[in-house]
Order: sequence, then structure tokens, then C-alpha cells
Amino acid sequence: MKKIRAAIVGYGNIGKYVLDAILVSPDFELAGVVRRDPTNIPSELFKYTVVGKIGELKDIDVAILCAPTRSIEGYAKECLAAGINTVDSYDIHGGIVNLRRELDAVAKANNTVAIISAGWDPGTDSIVRSMMEFMAPKGVTYTNFGPGMSMGHTVAVKAIKGVKAALSMTIPLGTGIHRRMVYIEIENGYDFADVAAAIKADDYFVHDETHVMQVECVESLKDMGHGVSMARKGVSGLAQNQLLEFNMKINNPALTAQVLVASARATLKQKPGAYTMIEVPVIDFIYGDKEALIKKLV
Amino acid sequence: MKKIRAAIVGYGNIGKYVLDAILVSPDFELAGVVRRDPTNIPSELFKYTVVGKIGELKDIDVAILCAPTRSIEGYAKECLAAGINTVDSYDIHGGIVNLRRELDAVAKANNTVAIISAGWDPGTDSIVRSMMEFMAPKGVTYTNFGPGMSMGHTVAVKAIKGVKAALSMTIPLGTGIHRRMVYIEIENGYDFADVAAAIKADDYFVHDETHVMQVECVESLKDMGHGVSMARKGVSGLAQNQLLEFNMKINNPALTAQVLVASARATLKQKPGAYTMIEVPVIDFIYGDKEALIKKLV
Repeated sequence: MKKIRAAIVGYGNIGKYVLDAILVSPDFELAGVVRRDPTNIPSELFKYTVVGKIGELKDIDVAILCAPTRSIEGYAKECLAAGINTVDSYDIHGGIVNLRRELDAVAKANNTVAIISAGWDPGTDSIVRSMMEFMAPKGVTYTNFGPGMSMGHTVAVKAIKGVKAALSMTIPLGTGIHRRMVYIEIENGYDFADVAAAIKADDYFVHDETHVMQVECVESLKDMGHGVSMARKGVSGLAQNQLLEFNMKINNPALTAQVLVASARATLKQKPGAYTMIEVPVIDFIYGDKEALIKKLV
Repeated sequence: MKKIRAAIVGYGNIGKYVLDAILVSPDFELAGVVRRDPTNIPSELFKYTVVGKIGELKDIDVAILCAPTRSIEGYAKECLAAGINTVDSYDIHGGIVNLRRELDAVAKANNTVAIISAGWDPGTDSIVRSMMEFMAPKGVTYTNFGPGMSMGHTVAVKAIKGVKAALSMTIPLGTGIHRRMVYIEIENGYDFADVAAAIKADDYFVHDETHVMQVECVESLKDMGHGVSMARKGVSGLAQNQLLEFNMKINNPALTAQVLVASARATLKQKPGAYTMIEVPVIDFIYGDKEALIKKLV
């Protein structure tokens, strides 16, 4: 069997977990890793090719983009134009439609495929939301996140003056309402009350119940566990009170990485263009013979 | 907007709920109802066309097959050959691959589309099972049904000598193990102990913990509520203990009917052939503009 040759673009937290997911997938092989500094090679990459540009790798089927969300569009266009499929976990909900349009044009012009926003939210949660929507077309779906560390909120706290280290935890209060628990270390010479007030006034926090706490060591609080609880109460036909629910408790970067690898597989089964996960048949994300999967899973 | 013209084939329990779902769907109109006895017209159908053969209806886009599972293949082939798409909720898990092959050939030869086994299990549960499979490729998924009435088991009990009326309830015990609670009325001249022993020895019941109870009136126990609880504990990459869970409490025929109507919509967006729900993008089941749905749901 010819294996799918995948490149990891960006080797941070997600990239490391993508390496694990590629190595345990029977249909994948690692073509190489693209880093901004290709001379910085951690020991687990010693036996793989590490380069500074995707163009230095040969025969790539798909690039798994693990770079920060804001740099995804640039990397994706470069790969797609070079004849390489891409997947990413772009996570700015308001920007997804535009990213899809942009990449769709480049992908179609170059006979390649992009699957975008392929993580868990956006991503697999989007599949569940869509399914709940057609099962009970009238009703409300609530997506409750956590308890778990929010990457976006943590970055926002770190950007505030006087913050030395930070961790923002998302606590679900139900019906899509969340509490933010922010743990910080303070730079010398700053006043905790001032810093806490600045955090609470930030756009990321001003709409939520936010508690800021000073701690000795933020690092000792970090846990990559996360969770989601989605619930819809709706109407099927004329039948009220249809109750649908999806819950998970997961290692956050490990799940994101696994979904990226599944999506990389699915790119090879789509026609040229850019897709979100809800536009791809779920069977295409899975390794195996089609009829055997239907027999096992349907 | 041109509406999707749907025919209901078979007007039993599911067919009645499909009527509701069609009437509340903005993109559908009812082309007519096909019954074995077209002179038997309940009052809610007075304003619609009721016929004995699908060929008597005009300009049908899709036939929603609400006939018993064992008659689905025949009805589907007749419709597909006549240029009409079909959907069904065929529910014999072991027969799905074969039905798909049979209908795929007829559909492709006649430029039509069939979506098969489109209910909740098989159906939407299959989508969830597939999604859980690629989120955590190593692990076990348990599907726990109930509490709720099992149509198949109830029919099996009714076939046993001495049973006047019956209801078989499925009670989930976890890890895919179920208890069967069987409520029966006895024919005159039969001994309860003998009948109960015959039920417990039946293929449908012999592998499960089964309790048989004699009641005065089975009808008064019937409730169309049902439920499912699916759980997977698995591995994403090298990360163990990924916990995924899907639960629902629903009106059973109403959900089946709504899924059938959503699938009827999706038939118009597929290339000719036969599909299970896991082979169809979830967005195709939903009414609305593609980019608006992506913005709302992804």
C-alpha cells in the first residue's frame, strides 16, 4: 500500500501531537517537518527531515498546518499553489467563510484540496451541531466549553502589562455561558489590583464573569485536559422536547492533532476545492475499506 | 423557489410522522401518498392525493419509503428505475451492505440517488459512531438503547402462540448490554408460564436478561419515547482516556421521520448511486444557503 506522505508545518504544541498521530496511523508516513528555524531539532525529530521551507521536501501529498491561526492563510495558499493538499485547525469562527473562499479559489486553480477549521471546535463539534440541526430543525443548541484551558484567552492575558505568566480556564455554567478563571504571576513593580482590573476590562473578558487570582507558579496549574457539552432541545416534525446531547472530556491538543490527521486522509478523497468538515462525508475521515466500514459503523 | 416534491410510500406509524415533517419543512411539498388500499383515506389526508401505485403520481423528486423493512428493496428499485430518488430507514444491520450494492446498481443505471438506512440507528447514530472512530481510532464504542419500546422485539413476541398483545421494552444496562422487559396479554386457554418460557427461548431474547410480565392492557403501557446513550473511551495519537459520549431522549417515529425528510433533501445533492448516511456530508441534510450554514454551524 502506498502511504500518504504528510508534512508537519509548524512544530509547536499541536505539531508534536500530530507527529504522534501520524506515527500510529497505518496509512501515513512522515515526509518531514517545516520549522522557521530548521537548525532547532528536538531529539524526537533526529530521524526525520527538518527543513525551513515546504518546497525543500519531496513528494508531499498533504501539509498539516500547525502554525498559529493568523498565519494559516499564507501557508495554505503557498502549499495549495505548489500542488500540495492542506489541512488546518483555523479557529476564528468569524473568519471561516472568508478563509474557505480564499483557499477554494487557489485549490481549484491548482487541482488541490484544503480542509479548513479541522479541530474539535470548529471541527467535530461543527459536525454534531449540524446533525442536531437536521434532527430537530426548530430549537436551540448550546455549546458549553470546559472545564479547560483556553489558548486564546491565555494569550490575551499574557499581552496585558504587568503579567509575567498566565493561564485562563474556561468553566461552563450551562446554556453557553462561561466563567473565566484567570491565574497570573505578576511582574515586579506592578499592583495586582490594577492588573486584574485591566484583564477584566479586556475585550476577551468584559462580557463574562471573570475571576483573577495571583499565584506563585502558573506552570504547575497547566493541564491539557478540556471538555465540551453540547445540548439541543428541539422539535422533529411536530414532536416537541427532542433532547440531544454530546459530551467529551479529552486531551485537547491530542484530539486536535488526531482530527487534523483524519482530515489529511479525507483531502485525498475530495474534488479540488476548500471544505469545512461538515462538507465532507464522515466515512472519508476514517482509514479502511469502504464496505467494511459501512458494515462496522452504520 | 421550486419546492422538493416528495411522495410518502406506506402510511403507517412512520408515514404519519413523515407527513408532519414534510408540512413543516419550507423546501418541501407533498406530492401524494401511496397506500396498498388507496380507498382507505384518513381525514388528515383528505386534501392530498392518495394512490395505490407510485406511477400514478406526477413529477416526484423523491419517494420517502415508510413501508416495512423487508419490502424496502422492492419499492426502492421500482422508484429508482422510474427516475425517482428514494430514502428509507431499512434497519437490519446485517443487510445494509447488500441493500446498498443492489440499489447502487439500479440508481446508477437510472441516474437517481438512494439514501438508505436513514433513521437514528442505523442513521444518525452511525454518523456519531463514525466520528468517534476517527477522533479516537483505538478504543471501544458502546451503543446503549432505551429505555424504550423495541419494534422488532415486540413483533417477535406477538408471533409466539398464546400472545394476544405484547410490548417489549429495551432497558440499557451499559456497555451495550440490554435487559428486555416484555409485557403481554394472554389468549384464553394458554398458560402464562409456558408462554413466558417460549418468549425467553426465542432467538430475539435468548441472549439477553428477559423478564416477561402478564398485564391487563398492553395498550395503556405504550409510549413512543426512546433513547440512546453512546460512549467511546479511546486513544487519539498516543493520548489515552479520550472520553466521548452522545445521548438522546426522543419521540422515536418523529425523529425517524425527520431524518428521512432531511435525507430526501440530501438525495438531490448527490451524484447517482446509493449511500448510507455516513457517506453524505452532514451539511447536505440541512435546509439553507451553504455559506450561511457554514457561518452558523461550523
